[in-house]
Amino acid sequence: MEKLNYLLGYENLYIYQDSDWFNFSLDSVLLPNFATINKNTKKILDIGTGNAVIPIILSTKTTSSIVGVEIQKECYELGIKSLEKNNLSNRIQLINDDIRNYYLALESDIFDLITCNPPYFKISDDCNMANDDHKKLARHELTLNLEDIFKISRKLLKNGGRIAIVQRPERLIEIISIMKKNNIEPKRMRFVYPRKGKSANILLIEGVKNGKEGLKIESPLYTYDNNEYTDEILSYFK
Amino acid sequence: MEKLNYLLGYENLYIYQDSDWFNFSLDSVLLPNFATINKNTKKILDIGTGNAVIPIILSTKTTSSIVGVEIQKECYELGIKSLEKNNLSNRIQLINDDIRNYYLALESDIFDLITCNPPYFKISDDCNMANDDHKKLARHELTLNLEDIFKISRKLLKNGGRIAIVQRPERLIEIISIMKKNNIEPKRMRFVYPRKGKSANILLIEGVKNGKEGLKIESPLYTYDNNEYTDEILSYFK
Repeated sequence: MEKLNYLLGYENLYIYQDSDWFNFSLDSVLLPNFATINKNTKKILDIGTGNAVIPIILSTKTTSSIVGVEIQKECYELGIKSLEKNNLSNRIQLINDDIRNYYLALESDIFDLITCNPPYFKISDDCNMANDDHKKLARHELTLNLEDIFKISRKLLKNGGRIAIVQRPERLIEIISIMKKNNIEPKRMRFVYPRKGKSANILLIEGVKNGKEGLKIESPLYTYDNNEYTDEILSYFK
Repeated sequence: MEKLNYLLGYENLYIYQDSDWFNFSLDSVLLPNFATINKNTKKILDIGTGNAVIPIILSTKTTSSIVGVEIQKECYELGIKSLEKNNLSNRIQLINDDIRNYYLALESDIFDLITCNPPYFKISDDCNMANDDHKKLARHELTLNLEDIFKISRKLLKNGGRIAIVQRPERLIEIISIMKKNNIEPKRMRFVYPRKGKSANILLIEGVKNGKEGLKIESPLYTYDNNEYTDEILSYFK
């Protein structure tokens, strides 16, 4: 069922969602708040943009041009409606295509920043797949895996351009290896912990194309403190 | 100048140190408190053991046999004196040799756990080398680098055996790559932050020889809270 929601706390921002599908999650809010955006960030690509929640949040932080690519037609259409509702159609361009196809026609070295909230799980026969096709695509690497994401970024990022993704910490070793293989140097990481004393459940990682070695592990981010969102999480919704 | 100190807070434990050299640091206390020790941990090796502070702390946690190898004769001799003073000479064996030489004569697959608080810095012409030779050896990779440590561990660890090291977070990417190259799977990491809101300044990492993929980022450890040691740090000194 299609619904129009406020994009939590973002003044005047709305998001169209289908409650039967995958709603935007905390991850989609963490990532645009983690990615490095500065005066040199002129052109941004969001891979697997869903209903465009990441481009919409990015638009509050930068006047860069933003392109979002989404393979699922229904998600893409919700994104288009959200952009219209927010008067963002002139600043954010949505493409309904498979990024693995779309990027082939693009020039290399054109983006300053790529963001991606990719599927979390490797395809595996024994994992519990969601029944619904939309959720399946969003949760599993049926159409896009980590190798694809960094191979595509290697081509599309400018020299010194950045890619920021959100993933499960369990996959850190694999992510680093794939980044290095694609000449993308991991430069910043931040781990998100559900609460004090717990292991991390979300990894935020940013790499620089052809970057020099040297990694920073930024301060831990806690989601909850005494069953309430922490001040930092709440600040993302203001 | 040689001094006999209490090993802070450890009841009845002493450590001989030379105040002109490198005294044991927080790192040497963090590492034995991080390493996995269980009922299957029968044989432990500490590489670059200095004045044996890590074996002495480990001896409070396990009845395993512990071997420490130290290249510098003066450090080794302080270690021997510390073991005698603590009545630990029967449980901890110190070897005065270069581990890169010593390990060649050992059988493979003999240790359950290897610990190492290795030199932090790569050799570089432009880095500020300490004037004193002892400090130089301990701080810089003149005699032992990360490649050596994991190559040696690959041989000496049993299948499923563990190696835990403490390092600067800046070198995480390099460490992971060297571990993987030596069939040692990173399984646990813990980042130590000087205080809230700061980036990590110490990395604790443990790998398993021939281990399966799957990494856990354990809860953050803060050193200070309002200029006092945190409760967790203080608990290591009790």
